[in-house]
Amino acid sequence: MSLVRVHNFSISLDGYATGDGQTMEAPFGHAGMRLMEWFGGTKTFRTMSGREGGSLGVENGLASAWGPGIGAEIMGRNKFGPQRGPWTDEEWRGWWGDNPPFHTPVFVLTHHPRPSIEMEGGTTFHFIDASPEEALRQARKAAGDLDVRIGGGPTVVREFLAGDLIDYLHLAVVPIVLGRGVRLWDGLEGLEERFVVESTTAPSGVTHLTFSRR
Amino acid sequence: MSLVRVHNFSISLDGYATGDGQTMEAPFGHAGMRLMEWFGGTKTFRTMSGREGGSLGVENGLASAWGPGIGAEIMGRNKFGPQRGPWTDEEWRGWWGDNPPFHTPVFVLTHHPRPSIEMEGGTTFHFIDASPEEALRQARKAAGDLDVRIGGGPTVVREFLAGDLIDYLHLAVVPIVLGRGVRLWDGLEGLEERFVVESTTAPSGVTHLTFSRR
Repeated sequence: MSLVRVHNFSISLDGYATGDGQTMEAPFGHAGMRLMEWFGGTKTFRTMSGREGGSLGVENGLASAWGPGIGAEIMGRNKFGPQRGPWTDEEWRGWWGDNPPFHTPVFVLTHHPRPSIEMEGGTTFHFIDASPEEALRQARKAAGDLDVRIGGGPTVVREFLAGDLIDYLHLAVVPIVLGRGVRLWDGLEGLEERFVVESTTAPSGVTHLTFSRR
Repeated sequence: MSLVRVHNFSISLDGYATGDGQTMEAPFGHAGMRLMEWFGGTKTFRTMSGREGGSLGVENGLASAWGPGIGAEIMGRNKFGPQRGPWTDEEWRGWWGDNPPFHTPVFVLTHHPRPSIEMEGGTTFHFIDASPEEALRQARKAAGDLDVRIGGGPTVVREFLAGDLIDYLHLAVVPIVLGRGVRLWDGLEGLEERFVVESTTAPSGVTHLTFSRR
């Protein structure tokens, strides 16, 4: 059975995975890029975004588990773009450039389905209005024997956790207090009982936790 | 100038420092003792509660900074006992036994002042209806040249943090999701900007963060 995995998912100390006020220019709202700074410097991220260099080391080690063995991703609509409601601009093809870093089918959860978009490099965005269970069924079919990654944002990860659909969660807790935005944790009382939890702190001050299904 | 310090303050991953439903038998409500398990095994805690044994090691090292140099504590009413509203039983003298572990004046914040109680071993409980600033003024006077400890619970720590009255905060993040209770973090956006933040993970899985005023 293929696994369902979340990688490099960053939250603030107060549990926000994105800030308030997402716009085209500010995908994480008032949080800016602060939640992703630890990731931005890694070799994994730089390779993913077509650049050279980047750090090796503990955080890159954790970050690099993101790609191998993944056959499809499921993401929330606001990881694709900032629009709410009916699509008004179908020309714009998301935040991820012509050659997105996913290189697999990507299922974008939205209440407003639209035709699929085939990008360069193997990424195809499918826009589906589906429950977590149904989205996972479609993603598993697309992934074949490979695993499915839940790409975020926080609402999607929370729903999949609440539905007990996630086998592995790598969480990066960044030592900042965002104060507002979208929280991961609401309604997940007792989550730890289903997982073996490990944690390690990196010199960046970020604490990395892994939740592996028992 | 004496410092204002918080030690061994434990929260869940979702930021709750106490659970829901405090009673005489359950000081932390539905959280039980899960937030304090890491602390309960340390030599510091065992000595504090008049017993022998207990672990040395990293967590005891952190825990042991709790006592030295402290001349007074400020605590919320529900760290003294579970009562709400006017006191109906002034005979009961709190959760802390005849010889409480504080051994200093302790200022209990309450909207219902009552006569002070002198306990064995140097602890005197003073019940005051005061703002954080005024409580701190009284505690500093009682502490002389020594530091003042803010003993919790979460509402009190949050108010003192919001008022920028705290110089040092030691936070223990326990890898459980409580789901409900009283949260530390609300309204503290940008807290990290005023502090140097360090973190370390103990083998127990608890992440310890220290916030030291810049």
